[in-house]
Amino acid sequence: MVNHVLSLKVKHPVAVGSIRFDQEHFPLIVGPCSLESNKQVDHILATLNDLNIHLMRGGIWKLRTNPSSFQGLGTDALPLIESIKRAGLFLVSEVTDPRHIEFLLPHVSVFQVGARNMYNYYLLKELAQTGKPVLLKRSFAATVDEWLKAANYLLNGPCNHVILCERGIRTFEHGTRFTLDLNGALLAKAQSGLPVIVDPSHAIGLREFVPNLALAVAASGLDGLIMEVHPEPDQALSDGRQSMTLQQLQELVPQLDMVLNISGRKRC
Amino acid sequence: MVNHVLSLKVKHPVAVGSIRFDQEHFPLIVGPCSLESNKQVDHILATLNDLNIHLMRGGIWKLRTNPSSFQGLGTDALPLIESIKRAGLFLVSEVTDPRHIEFLLPHVSVFQVGARNMYNYYLLKELAQTGKPVLLKRSFAATVDEWLKAANYLLNGPCNHVILCERGIRTFEHGTRFTLDLNGALLAKAQSGLPVIVDPSHAIGLREFVPNLALAVAASGLDGLIMEVHPEPDQALSDGRQSMTLQQLQELVPQLDMVLNISGRKRC
Amino acid sequence: MVNHVLSLKVKHPVAVGSIRFDQEHFPLIVGPCSLESNKQVDHILATLNDLNIHLMRGGIWKLRTNPSSFQGLGTDALPLIESIKRAGLFLVSEVTDPRHIEFLLPHVSVFQVGARNMYNYYLLKELAQTGKPVLLKRSFAATVDEWLKAANYLLNGPCNHVILCERGIRTFEHGTRFTLDLNGALLAKAQSGLPVIVDPSHAIGLREFVPNLALAVAASGLDGLIMEVHPEPDQALSDGRQSMTLQQLQELVPQLDMVLNISGRKRC
Amino acid sequence: MVNHVLSLKVKHPVAVGSIRFDQEHFPLIVGPCSLESNKQVDHILATLNDLNIHLMRGGIWKLRTNPSSFQGLGTDALPLIESIKRAGLFLVSEVTDPRHIEFLLPHVSVFQVGARNMYNYYLLKELAQTGKPVLLKRSFAATVDEWLKAANYLLNGPCNHVILCERGIRTFEHGTRFTLDLNGALLAKAQSGLPVIVDPSHAIGLREFVPNLALAVAASGLDGLIMEVHPEPDQALSDGRQSMTLQQLQELVPQLDMVLNISGRKRC
Repeated sequence: MVNHVLSLKVKHPVAVGSIRFDQEHFPLIVGPCSLESNKQVDHILATLNDLNIHLMRGGIWKLRTNPSSFQGLGTDALPLIESIKRAGLFLVSEVTDPRHIEFLLPHVSVFQVGARNMYNYYLLKELAQTGKPVLLKRSFAATVDEWLKAANYLLNGPCNHVILCERGIRTFEHGTRFTLDLNGALLAKAQSGLPVIVDPSHAIGLREFVPNLALAVAASGLDGLIMEVHPEPDQALSDGRQSMTLQQLQELVPQLDMVLNISGRKRC
Repeated sequence: MVNHVLSLKVKHPVAVGSIRFDQEHFPLIVGPCSLESNKQVDHILATLNDLNIHLMRGGIWKLRTNPSSFQGLGTDALPLIESIKRAGLFLVSEVTDPRHIEFLLPHVSVFQVGARNMYNYYLLKELAQTGKPVLLKRSFAATVDEWLKAANYLLNGPCNHVILCERGIRTFEHGTRFTLDLNGALLAKAQSGLPVIVDPSHAIGLREFVPNLALAVAASGLDGLIMEVHPEPDQALSDGRQSMTLQQLQELVPQLDMVLNISGRKRC
Repeated sequence: MVNHVLSLKVKHPVAVGSIRFDQEHFPLIVGPCSLESNKQVDHILATLNDLNIHLMRGGIWKLRTNPSSFQGLGTDALPLIESIKRAGLFLVSEVTDPRHIEFLLPHVSVFQVGARNMYNYYLLKELAQTGKPVLLKRSFAATVDEWLKAANYLLNGPCNHVILCERGIRTFEHGTRFTLDLNGALLAKAQSGLPVIVDPSHAIGLREFVPNLALAVAASGLDGLIMEVHPEPDQALSDGRQSMTLQQLQELVPQLDMVLNISGRKRC
Repeated sequence: MVNHVLSLKVKHPVAVGSIRFDQEHFPLIVGPCSLESNKQVDHILATLNDLNIHLMRGGIWKLRTNPSSFQGLGTDALPLIESIKRAGLFLVSEVTDPRHIEFLLPHVSVFQVGARNMYNYYLLKELAQTGKPVLLKRSFAATVDEWLKAANYLLNGPCNHVILCERGIRTFEHGTRFTLDLNGALLAKAQSGLPVIVDPSHAIGLREFVPNLALAVAASGLDGLIMEVHPEPDQALSDGRQSMTLQQLQELVPQLDMVLNISGRKRC
């Protein structure tokens, strides 16, 4: 039996330590929207450790629509970053300004380019020089074609360390925060051969539906997930409405494993 | 373990003969875009029979963007309709004009309202009088709120025989025919309690990705699929690009069964 | 001096009595969303007469999103229709169901196809047989290409009696009801040579901005306006928020005349 | 007679030398997409001088979708910048990277923030410190609400030197490059009291329609225009398809003056 899920091939796998974004593996990147406090980070680290999750997301500088919203801890996040590294996890964090690259370089394992910076080609050119893997989120207004062209700014030379991330596009439907574009994610994978993961948290903006989307992504033949969690989502300094509780995560992971097992893939 | 997939409940199940659109079942509706010929219909019927699929789609009158395109067989489809009934399948077919209801009434088991007629409230009011189940496709321009309000035109009185169908919305992304809105489908189910199925064929418009979307829908906790197939898609008189081959269907169904099994649901 | 405004030519002019939709004229079609009462109609007729406006819009059957909203007077509107005719005005009214054509035929001078029926090709084919001019609104989800193809359903044979009407498209911006697409209206005129008018009332949905858009349309080189007015907009049974007061109309018309005068066109 | 066009007030006027963005004036900002050569710049300067236009646009660093496209002259544009200043014109130029501010500060009269940087809040915060006026383009994916919140990043403290610029939003319609959103521009003006100008060149992407849109904007009650011109558009290194010829500009300006005259405004 030909497995249609597997007929979409990852041709340019990406490695982060022992974790692989390739055709056989399905990494989870999990963590809070923003790094906030020792207590928050320790609580999440304990859960990720239990669930055998090795990649942690966590925002240090944030781009917030409202100038009076919390803008991230910035360099004050250093002790929290050190905790994450001590726990043996790989940090995935967003770079919002080219002048932050130097600070972040020794600490992050994957640079994240957020949706609102996908068109920031000066930033992309600079990240291409670091040699680190980059998680390139699709702008919520970008066509697949523009997304792949932005990836080309990172792929100059022999480097293939790019992970694409679909996180919802902006459409007329405002009942959910954005519209997850699974179609576009599949097309991007087929056209580029790059690993394509999905951020269901931003894509729908409502934590109660994040597990449904996560399971859909696992069944669809795409390559991983990045998801927001928080020990107390309603107290989160940013994006609380879309952050899963740690209990939701604990219930979701075994179901993901079962779905991945059908197509012979393994979570990592 | 609480199963998040099952936390979205179908509160208003719909029965078509022995087939049930409810929380435990996941019906497949499969067939050609348009009924074309004896040979085409017999070939598809044989495959559906092998796969234990009981609901067949098939267009009789078509709404085509281009006035010179094939507009459906109309009443000339009668012998083909009789074949389908003789084979014991239930026919799901679109009604595009209120004056066709009388002809269709004895032949179809489910009236389909196409995306371009969702706002045709005069048609909806009339269908509500027939007492038959209606598959109400979401207009590609409709908000979830408008879609549910259109369903209310059908649900006047005690009738709950409505199946909602997400078939892709129109967005700025033109790399695929439409954009499948899984978010909107989940929201519609949560807000209405009606069964919500998905049409991946129209939603993406490219047959090679239809199995990926179908598996995603099965894992997401939604309630069924309507899909286009054709024995020779490249010769189809309409929608050939998005019609799966019968072989694709044969390979897909066992994978769907495995995904459904995880959440304790059964295809029917 | 070449006048760029005039470089977009109407190649297929339409006549309604003595009123012409062509390169030299700029007709106004003004009236209520729905015909409601003698008092309402008489009040509007007096104002239109004062302003030398000869085409009146007025809904008889309405397509309303909410099943419990006012659905139009239907055949009870007959006495109001007679008043309009006695006053010497031409009625432009929407046909929402092919079975209403027979009733409307002796009363309307222009059949209006509303945005939600642009894809209702069975209705279009039937209207093409009546020989009357048709005002074809663009679906809020239609590309210009689909709009022109729908016009082709009306233009079979030698008939050229089609007026196109842009009335706003659906986009991610929900601060206004729809998004007026002047670009699309200009493109449709250039590609088809048909007269293209604009409905600023539906396009923005907020009466305070309707005059701004109306003046913009007059300056842009397009071919006319259809606008909603009501003697007491806040008491209107439908679309009150976007209906101008009669005073707004009285203030707007002389400004329109001045703008039209610059390019040598005349209101009619 | 109450003039509806004037009922939308500019409450926070902006001055650039003797040029004023306020309720009585309507500045034009005209120039090439990118500064390319002495010959190009001199040719344009001569035309602007003839037409009494005092603000010139001209890109120095460009954000290009395709990594192999022309990326702007960068600091090599210095001699061209000096020519513009010697000719007595004010330069409006885009800043794409916060590290370019220092270079640009002595040369530009207005910093332009392009559509793809509207969400770049780190850049906005820094520009707010320079004290210079900023032309803030709306992202093609931004709601009016987000656009005004981005303006708030610039308006911290007593500064009101912000000019908003609508340049087209991304919608499903791809027959034109973007969709000019006049509705959104009017709403932004009404809600903020800031001057709102329009860029018809980017909004439609087709030079033959730019004059139509420019006249519409002048009639609509908005506050100015920024437009691309090129002596030989088909040889332009960027955006040639949407750049007007100098002859088109010469024909357009007197028509703009006539339209503005109706509402008692003056071009400057």
